Amino acid sequence: MESDFTVLRSNPVIHDSAALLQQYQYTRQLTEQLAAPLSEADAQIQSMPDASPAKWHLAHTTWFFETFILVKYLAGYTRLCEAYNYLFNSYYNGIGEQYQRTQRGVISRPSLAEVMTYRHHVDAAIIRLLSETDDLHDISSLITLGVNHEQQHQELLLTDLKHGLSLNPLFPEYRPSRGAIHLAAEANEPTHTTSFSEGLYTIGHDGNGFAFDNECPQHPVFLQAFELSNRPVSNRQYLAFIEAGGYQNPQYWLSDGWAWVNQQQASAPLYWQQQDGQWWYYTLAGLEPVDMDAPVTHVNYYEATAYAHWAGGRLPTEFEWEVAAQQARLNDDTNGHLLSLDCLRPLPVAGTGLVQLLGDVWEWTSSSYCAYPGFAPFEGNAGEYNGKFMSNQYVLRGGSCATPQGHIRHTYRNFFYAHQAWQFTGIRLAYS
Amino acid sequence: MESDFTVLRSNPVIHDSAALLQQYQYTRQLTEQLAAPLSEADAQIQSMPDASPAKWHLAHTTWFFETFILVKYLAGYTRLCEAYNYLFNSYYNGIGEQYQRTQRGVISRPSLAEVMTYRHHVDAAIIRLLSETDDLHDISSLITLGVNHEQQHQELLLTDLKHGLSLNPLFPEYRPSRGAIHLAAEANEPTHTTSFSEGLYTIGHDGNGFAFDNECPQHPVFLQAFELSNRPVSNRQYLAFIEAGGYQNPQYWLSDGWAWVNQQQASAPLYWQQQDGQWWYYTLAGLEPVDMDAPVTHVNYYEATAYAHWAGGRLPTEFEWEVAAQQARLNDDTNGHLLSLDCLRPLPVAGTGLVQLLGDVWEWTSSSYCAYPGFAPFEGNAGEYNGKFMSNQYVLRGGSCATPQGHIRHTYRNFFYAHQAWQFTGIRLAYS
Amino acid sequence: MESDFTVLRSNPVIHDSAALLQQYQYTRQLTEQLAAPLSEADAQIQSMPDASPAKWHLAHTTWFFETFILVKYLAGYTRLCEAYNYLFNSYYNGIGEQYQRTQRGVISRPSLAEVMTYRHHVDAAIIRLLSETDDLHDISSLITLGVNHEQQHQELLLTDLKHGLSLNPLFPEYRPSRGAIHLAAEANEPTHTTSFSEGLYTIGHDGNGFAFDNECPQHPVFLQAFELSNRPVSNRQYLAFIEAGGYQNPQYWLSDGWAWVNQQQASAPLYWQQQDGQWWYYTLAGLEPVDMDAPVTHVNYYEATAYAHWAGGRLPTEFEWEVAAQQARLNDDTNGHLLSLDCLRPLPVAGTGLVQLLGDVWEWTSSSYCAYPGFAPFEGNAGEYNGKFMSNQYVLRGGSCATPQGHIRHTYRNFFYAHQAWQFTGIRLAYS
Amino acid sequence: MESDFTVLRSNPVIHDSAALLQQYQYTRQLTEQLAAPLSEADAQIQSMPDASPAKWHLAHTTWFFETFILVKYLAGYTRLCEAYNYLFNSYYNGIGEQYQRTQRGVISRPSLAEVMTYRHHVDAAIIRLLSETDDLHDISSLITLGVNHEQQHQELLLTDLKHGLSLNPLFPEYRPSRGAIHLAAEANEPTHTTSFSEGLYTIGHDGNGFAFDNECPQHPVFLQAFELSNRPVSNRQYLAFIEAGGYQNPQYWLSDGWAWVNQQQASAPLYWQQQDGQWWYYTLAGLEPVDMDAPVTHVNYYEATAYAHWAGGRLPTEFEWEVAAQQARLNDDTNGHLLSLDCLRPLPVAGTGLVQLLGDVWEWTSSSYCAYPGFAPFEGNAGEYNGKFMSNQYVLRGGSCATPQGHIRHTYRNFFYAHQAWQFTGIRLAYS
Repeated sequence: MESDFTVLRSNPVIHDSAALLQQYQYTRQLTEQLAAPLSEADAQIQSMPDASPAKWHLAHTTWFFETFILVKYLAGYTRLCEAYNYLFNSYYNGIGEQYQRTQRGVISRPSLAEVMTYRHHVDAAIIRLLSETDDLHDISSLITLGVNHEQQHQELLLTDLKHGLSLNPLFPEYRPSRGAIHLAAEANEPTHTTSFSEGLYTIGHDGNGFAFDNECPQHPVFLQAFELSNRPVSNRQYLAFIEAGGYQNPQYWLSDGWAWVNQQQASAPLYWQQQDGQWWYYTLAGLEPVDMDAPVTHVNYYEATAYAHWAGGRLPTEFEWEVAAQQARLNDDTNGHLLSLDCLRPLPVAGTGLVQLLGDVWEWTSSSYCAYPGFAPFEGNAGEYNGKFMSNQYVLRGGSCATPQGHIRHTYRNFFYAHQAWQFTGIRLAYS
Repeated sequence: MESDFTVLRSNPVIHDSAALLQQYQYTRQLTEQLAAPLSEADAQIQSMPDASPAKWHLAHTTWFFETFILVKYLAGYTRLCEAYNYLFNSYYNGIGEQYQRTQRGVISRPSLAEVMTYRHHVDAAIIRLLSETDDLHDISSLITLGVNHEQQHQELLLTDLKHGLSLNPLFPEYRPSRGAIHLAAEANEPTHTTSFSEGLYTIGHDGNGFAFDNECPQHPVFLQAFELSNRPVSNRQYLAFIEAGGYQNPQYWLSDGWAWVNQQQASAPLYWQQQDGQWWYYTLAGLEPVDMDAPVTHVNYYEATAYAHWAGGRLPTEFEWEVAAQQARLNDDTNGHLLSLDCLRPLPVAGTGLVQLLGDVWEWTSSSYCAYPGFAPFEGNAGEYNGKFMSNQYVLRGGSCATPQGHIRHTYRNFFYAHQAWQFTGIRLAYS
Repeated sequence: MESDFTVLRSNPVIHDSAALLQQYQYTRQLTEQLAAPLSEADAQIQSMPDASPAKWHLAHTTWFFETFILVKYLAGYTRLCEAYNYLFNSYYNGIGEQYQRTQRGVISRPSLAEVMTYRHHVDAAIIRLLSETDDLHDISSLITLGVNHEQQHQELLLTDLKHGLSLNPLFPEYRPSRGAIHLAAEANEPTHTTSFSEGLYTIGHDGNGFAFDNECPQHPVFLQAFELSNRPVSNRQYLAFIEAGGYQNPQYWLSDGWAWVNQQQASAPLYWQQQDGQWWYYTLAGLEPVDMDAPVTHVNYYEATAYAHWAGGRLPTEFEWEVAAQQARLNDDTNGHLLSLDCLRPLPVAGTGLVQLLGDVWEWTSSSYCAYPGFAPFEGNAGEYNGKFMSNQYVLRGGSCATPQGHIRHTYRNFFYAHQAWQFTGIRLAYS
Repeated sequence: MESDFTVLRSNPVIHDSAALLQQYQYTRQLTEQLAAPLSEADAQIQSMPDASPAKWHLAHTTWFFETFILVKYLAGYTRLCEAYNYLFNSYYNGIGEQYQRTQRGVISRPSLAEVMTYRHHVDAAIIRLLSETDDLHDISSLITLGVNHEQQHQELLLTDLKHGLSLNPLFPEYRPSRGAIHLAAEANEPTHTTSFSEGLYTIGHDGNGFAFDNECPQHPVFLQAFELSNRPVSNRQYLAFIEAGGYQNPQYWLSDGWAWVNQQQASAPLYWQQQDGQWWYYTLAGLEPVDMDAPVTHVNYYEATAYAHWAGGRLPTEFEWEVAAQQARLNDDTNGHLLSLDCLRPLPVAGTGLVQLLGDVWEWTSSSYCAYPGFAPFEGNAGEYNGKFMSNQYVLRGGSCATPQGHIRHTYRNFFYAHQAWQFTGIRLAYS
């Protein structure tokens, strides 16, 4: 999983066809590497409407290139199978009707092998397109978008799979633990905070390199002085909240959160279970004892805010987070574990600065996901995307141990509903 | 799929170990033949809580032999995997907790190959048990029960699979159409009825050969004179009901049925769809034009009673049906298509007598599923079965095109909820 | 609440206009007496879709007379308010659309006073019709039907109200306890059974006097020998089941029943609660200690069958029940408490014969509600009634402490869904 | 409904006991005036879980004064009825358990008269407290909070009642139309916009007079230049959106909104219906033709954003709205119709400036409801309020035709879920 792209902080938009092809092929191959350990049965399962089968991710990302590039730009291209345009369209109403998302797990045909054939059919066509096209302008933007889109689905492939496998009482292993463990040493320094002063800050993407439409345009935001914790909340810290009766006490919870606790009978993060007095959690390497030094993950927004309330802090706004990340870029310890480090779980990181701003866990912010002033969606059908989800969700920042190298950046805005926890979601506290 | 057992009307309880072994092996192999066309993905899908993945059927039937026979009777036997006793227990509370049925489609491990290994592990142990045991008394009853249990799951494997594949817009083929089509000639003679006179009749199984506990004990039932249609309602006849506005008129429907029509926006049987003015239905060989001469199938109890009401008849009671079947046994045309004829769909049958009482479609009766006077469940945990389902379901009689040869008999009582239609369910009218 | 009708075992169909008028007026007045203790707020509440506000019962029974008699038979009659034909039609599709039943509690207008005006408007018209009509033939049948219909709603008015008031933590009193308590003495003789021999019995109504269509036609039924308990199961007996862990043990329960127990977290009959180790239940006179000698009530079909299973008996079929009631008619102690005795709760009755077959509690039978052989619904729109409910419900026999005198008879078939318990439902055991 | 308080822009916190008493009594009497036209049945109805019966509002507001003031500050005070502390606690977990909100409509006892007795019991005690207390400091804040709390429930009483009555096919009248119609003249000037320049603005309440905790603390916010429409969107303008196929076209809708349209089969605002080609809506004076010049109301957040998208504008942020309202305070036409004008519906207002910023309709903003920097809830149990609702809701500004005079101010933040429309909610467009 090593790659030349590991040196990039953010995917650039490349107008050189050889470099573009290299980036395309690297991304496509990485997806297939992630799927390689899966049996056809593993690739088929869908454990909830929010999750999709791995096979569907393999096909949908391919449909994206076919639909938004090949059909329009490659003369004489015909879809490998017309029905795929219905089966593998996620939610683009501009393209047409979609197969219902709740039943993706029923689609046993095309087989995994047929989906791989579909992938290679489209790959060959993209290669041909790049070799035949003189003016890359439109195409390069769309291919870069497709690459970033596929990277998002790489992360979803892993988190959706984790959710599905977690329901199996055999607690099956996706892949043995490996990699990156050497970074975990000496995580037990006390948590401290870094101060940021009041002022007008610039938020959003500067236009150098690729960014999603929802990161733009850049604009000023006035912030009051705040402090930010130097590291994410650890499992040890979160366990103290559990043991203090956190899940039994309404005073810490938002009203919607307390309703969620009672409806779900929640008493610990997703994937945690207690056996003989010890806490275990399901990981992609099977059931393991909770690593108390590692960042807590698979907590939802309600749990994050309840913990913060209990701990005397609060969640940062997405602007506070971004300002902190801008300033922390000058030193190296801001980065934690991304997908390329291959650990597939959050791990502790030693360091005195703001550690793990990027990587390990997506950090819940208190910011509802909405448009930046002057926001304009990408043009064309491919832009039917970030904008239409701008309600009822919360922004998460920083990427996780399942985020591909090159995909994350300081301006990146991820978003999920408050009750969702199947991504590698975590908590970093702020203070006024 | 030919077998020596095709000459049997009902599975006997065999106390000869060689014959018992032959029956066991034939049944086990038939299940694997039915699963043979399936990919691992096909075997994984679960399209609704009522249905189970084919892989689960393969494993559950094996668990039955392991749990109720090997664990108790084969000295030194150990389960291949302890977790299977949780994963593949359907609903036997006497055995222990069960994995939730709604999430069977998520169990990608054990793999299909591992389940086949499990099957063969248990098969070898059963063979050893039969060769080592002198007194077959207990064992032979339980093996016969296990064989009949597995035959039920053979039918379910096909109907559950059909439901899952039907949701795929590619309308995939399980297996090409074949077999038995030559029987279909000249089905268009007019429907007529046969008369039965008032009297006291004997209902239930006579104890010769295997029967489920719910067919016993034999007992007298007084019936008034009635008439029974010589054949099941055909698609052509049912289409006339549709075209007469049957699904738009509450007067034909039970109150619960009219609520179902409105909730589901029902307008035709399950698997039917109209394209350019022609009616098609999904079959295990893919989407095909509706065969107007064939018996209508995949109608639920509400549709069956509404059709009967519209047509001026009624459903027979299960006792009327059984009396008719007793009398019709003397001639040969009572039998339609069972699984051994390999057509996997209802077909028309010519004949002047009561045709197709056995085979083609399970015929809804007006009888709610309940205990016969003096009913006693099978002893032991294996008896936690027919009795506990004796509420809110209706009896169906006669087997279908997916029922294994040797499994069906005139006293056999199948049962489903009034809203269910994914079995090969059909209609035969009675008149007072 | 005393009346000349108390001498009648069953409402006759009366073709003498004076007698018919007397019956009409008695019934209409009784309904208003039942509603007299209610405030306008009490008369407005609807606590679940199955229940209706008392005000709605007052209006709907009136709509019945207006719609099926006055509109058709009284020249020049105009509805008091056209909208009432929509608001107060329960489920007669033949008459037109209906206001949704789940929102009846929202209909604050017409006011209770306006509904009483509506009642008296219709009463005056009925009186005029009877005085002006020479040929009573059609009208007398319909008025008798309307009277019986209103009697059903008298019982529902009380049970629906009880359900609504029970949810109020003040446990309000509908009316103080009174009447009939003197009958309760010495109920503690041991339960014993009465034997009935095998044979062909006649079931159903003989046509003398009014009966609902579902009690007809009379027909022979063959029964095997059985025994029937001389009295309903008492609260003391049922409590023994609770204390023996009845609600924790799946072996006693139907599969659907066990699902109900778990979904509802059921642990005792409806309206029971435990305070400081003592059991209380809500009655129409407020919260009271459970009377251990009284028949258990507010148990559903699942609880009734689970109790029977635990106690080593079973529920009788509706035919067994009716045969026992036929034979018991010769002596007087078969009758328990009906509405006219004004106790509004089941009470114990002493006696050595089959006591309380009529009155106190509706006794669950094991019979699914279905058509008798040759069943034909009443003609006309008023007949859109019993027939369309003949699925998924179970027959109860014998009436209750809320059933009006003159309404119940040995052939009377009541029916409810297996999960329902808000009627005065109880248990009498049978044995094979 | 005229009052000395009409001259106040915002309720002051009063430390003079006579003035405080006057404000208390005025507010308490206004609530009773609003309830005066209601029958006991009207006061009982609850049409959805979001709404409460009028009787409950009368009691809950009384419980507030009893619980947070009398129990603590008035020596010797005892609750009129202990059970009321359970029945009329809305959601204050700090106080104890609550009766389930979905079943408030079932509470027929206490009667409306008993609730009025409860009100007057508490009123007498408050009067006594005020006369006996020397140091008003704590009490005056709590009484002011209670007054503001009761004003909120005055608005809810009307909107909840409107929802309930609207489901009645008689479309009953709460009160005839009256008042304020003379303001409606000449509303047809073209809509135009007012420009606001980029800059750092102060947001939030300055501490002079009462404000809820969620309006504090004051803090700077940087805004980019924007334009704001001079008037709310009218019914005529909204109808153009409907007629342009707005409800059939997913491109205008947020993803959650499009799901809502399809689930609800929505095609017009709440309370609208079409008869013979003309549009009508239910008002508190019954069904009336839609007033095309009046502001559209009863649209939810999804409809507001879809309309804005279609019309080429957007919703303002709550900060933009507040800045506009600050600047508009200098002239008089910013105010539309509040409750004191007694029209009980939005009406058109003529004027060239920013009209109707206050009154007529609550204006949806694009701002998710969250804490201001440095937010601290009110102390004590009474503060278990605004803070715990700070998720998944959107801010509305400006008050409505049902908002009491003296309750609304430019910093006031109301909040509802995106799907809710039963308040008098409307739209004002902004442009970047």
